[in-house]
Amino acid sequence: MITAVEIEAKAKELKQKGYPVISLAIGEPDFPVHESIKDTIYKAVLDNKTYYPNPQGILELREAVAEYETKRKGIHISPDEILITAGGKPVIFYSIFSLCNKDDEVILLEPYYLVYPYWCKVLNIKYKVIKLEENGTIPKDEFLKALNSKTRLIIINYPNNPQGSLMNKENLDLLLEALEKFSRLYILSDEVYSELVYEGEHISIFKYNKERVILLESFSKTYSMTGLRLGYGIFPIDMIKNLKTMNSNLITGPSTPIQYAGIVALKDENVKNYVKTMLEEFRKRRDFLYEELKTFVKFKPQGAFYYFIKIPYDGLEFCNRALNEKYLAITPGILFGDSFKNYVRISFANSMENLKEGIRRFKELL
Amino acid sequence: MITAVEIEAKAKELKQKGYPVISLAIGEPDFPVHESIKDTIYKAVLDNKTYYPNPQGILELREAVAEYETKRKGIHISPDEILITAGGKPVIFYSIFSLCNKDDEVILLEPYYLVYPYWCKVLNIKYKVIKLEENGTIPKDEFLKALNSKTRLIIINYPNNPQGSLMNKENLDLLLEALEKFSRLYILSDEVYSELVYEGEHISIFKYNKERVILLESFSKTYSMTGLRLGYGIFPIDMIKNLKTMNSNLITGPSTPIQYAGIVALKDENVKNYVKTMLEEFRKRRDFLYEELKTFVKFKPQGAFYYFIKIPYDGLEFCNRALNEKYLAITPGILFGDSFKNYVRISFANSMENLKEGIRRFKELL
Repeated sequence: MITAVEIEAKAKELKQKGYPVISLAIGEPDFPVHESIKDTIYKAVLDNKTYYPNPQGILELREAVAEYETKRKGIHISPDEILITAGGKPVIFYSIFSLCNKDDEVILLEPYYLVYPYWCKVLNIKYKVIKLEENGTIPKDEFLKALNSKTRLIIINYPNNPQGSLMNKENLDLLLEALEKFSRLYILSDEVYSELVYEGEHISIFKYNKERVILLESFSKTYSMTGLRLGYGIFPIDMIKNLKTMNSNLITGPSTPIQYAGIVALKDENVKNYVKTMLEEFRKRRDFLYEELKTFVKFKPQGAFYYFIKIPYDGLEFCNRALNEKYLAITPGILFGDSFKNYVRISFANSMENLKEGIRRFKELL
Repeated sequence: MITAVEIEAKAKELKQKGYPVISLAIGEPDFPVHESIKDTIYKAVLDNKTYYPNPQGILELREAVAEYETKRKGIHISPDEILITAGGKPVIFYSIFSLCNKDDEVILLEPYYLVYPYWCKVLNIKYKVIKLEENGTIPKDEFLKALNSKTRLIIINYPNNPQGSLMNKENLDLLLEALEKFSRLYILSDEVYSELVYEGEHISIFKYNKERVILLESFSKTYSMTGLRLGYGIFPIDMIKNLKTMNSNLITGPSTPIQYAGIVALKDENVKNYVKTMLEEFRKRRDFLYEELKTFVKFKPQGAFYYFIKIPYDGLEFCNRALNEKYLAITPGILFGDSFKNYVRISFANSMENLKEGIRRFKELL
């Protein structure tokens, strides 16, 4: 199955060949990386901070993450619990690979991030898929039916890509009860859009049970640091030693100067204000698109930066047609689960100008 | 098992606490990254080349690698055959994981790089170990006894870490015949020290059978870019599509600005001269250490930057003692195979001053 990153790569290729491509395919903020972050990378390189990083992540960054998360979550988090990774994806691989054996089961919630089922499939781990309600609620009966003593891992993603829904109290209770009932069960909570919330409140299940919840966070979306590759997992402390060794044997760690940039992203006041500015800009785009799309969608996304739209066509064919006929790159819904063959995802992490032109082309195709 | 990177991390911690640590543990050139490379990273960041890379690696870098390797190997290599990775280690994981199933066998040559058996163990793939002769020759009878139709992968490393030996004609013939005889067999050729050769000639088996040999290369050692995390694999073309998807699902790719730096590393004449200067410096250090160590070692290493030394103690205990009593970090031989319990590895990728003091402390412990 093609990934969103591959669609984007194809779109870039067409663009390089001179076609007037507009890409609303990928979850990649169009904002440049903040100057303080850019300068930090250069300063780190100039200062020869270019040697192997500690395979758990450089201590200063883990300290900065611990401080940031302790404050956000209101529970104590230590640098020892944190594994710095090259973006958030390794946390998904590490969680599935290190927790699940061949008789175990994983529960995924649809729409899901393609990387979750990818690693389940490739690692030969059985998984069940439950379709979320449109507001992000987990259907209780179906969930309880899927859950059993073989369930080793539930992967959740709030704010949800591509649905834009938030975790709610009902889900939280349901998941915490599941952890209580099944002692082998873990939850991987992918919260990479946690700072991109337009209304309502982001609830992190992590703070209610950090012994059995793995937190996945990334610098990509919040700080527009997609291509720099920096993220982290906060793991139950007894998992860290093995995962540090695994990280050491897989990639050693993210590029050292980029790790220094991560410290500044978390601590610099100017960067914090920049994030606020980006969020306000995303909100404007979200509101603009809602007006354009309201015959197709019921409500505005509460978080992240996508519209997930049902169309009267096969989504994959439609996306191919969009790219080939209109040079518009968008993402087929099937990537987020089999229930979404007639869906497409449009990212509004793009300039207003591109959104206007992109949505014009999109409507022409309908 | 502790890794060399972890020993180094422990040594760095002690150093930060104020202890007069000298580390000859890790294979990490002490030279700074060349200015042209530093400037390229900053320029890429300033130019906002900070977005998601193509998951196979940015095209310009793959083109540069293809040109460089085509010239070196004397056979045509296309950018389509190349997968850019975060250092060389992912190539090891990808090769073992994508080629081997549970009934397959891997052959490792001892001394080996710890990452090879790590992934075999973790992925539950059976492996056999054959001890190389001191000059790097593969013992023919033992090799032919180990080889069978289940052998899916042989992992070789020349110039060898830690032995310093080169591939020879005898090995080359033996391995090429094995490929001819067993049609399911692949060879992973780890050649990360290929530019660090003091005498003799580096022979790459890759150019004799690129349909069944995977080439692993890294920017870490040659360009002193260890912490920047950049490497590549050249794979049989039919493996590339799946591995590109795997790379996309694991880390997306190395940090984008670092990929631009890779182009300059391969193309810039000043960088080429810098590499020559480093090599000459390594040669001097090698010769110096030989005089100091010649009661323990029979010959000078032909490539890489290590002495692998037999001592009259348990190597692991000795290394712990060295770090705790003398603040000297060196690497226990057991990391390179069970045959080397009484060995230690000393890296000469360090300043002459540190080598002099390090070797003084080393001798005091003997």
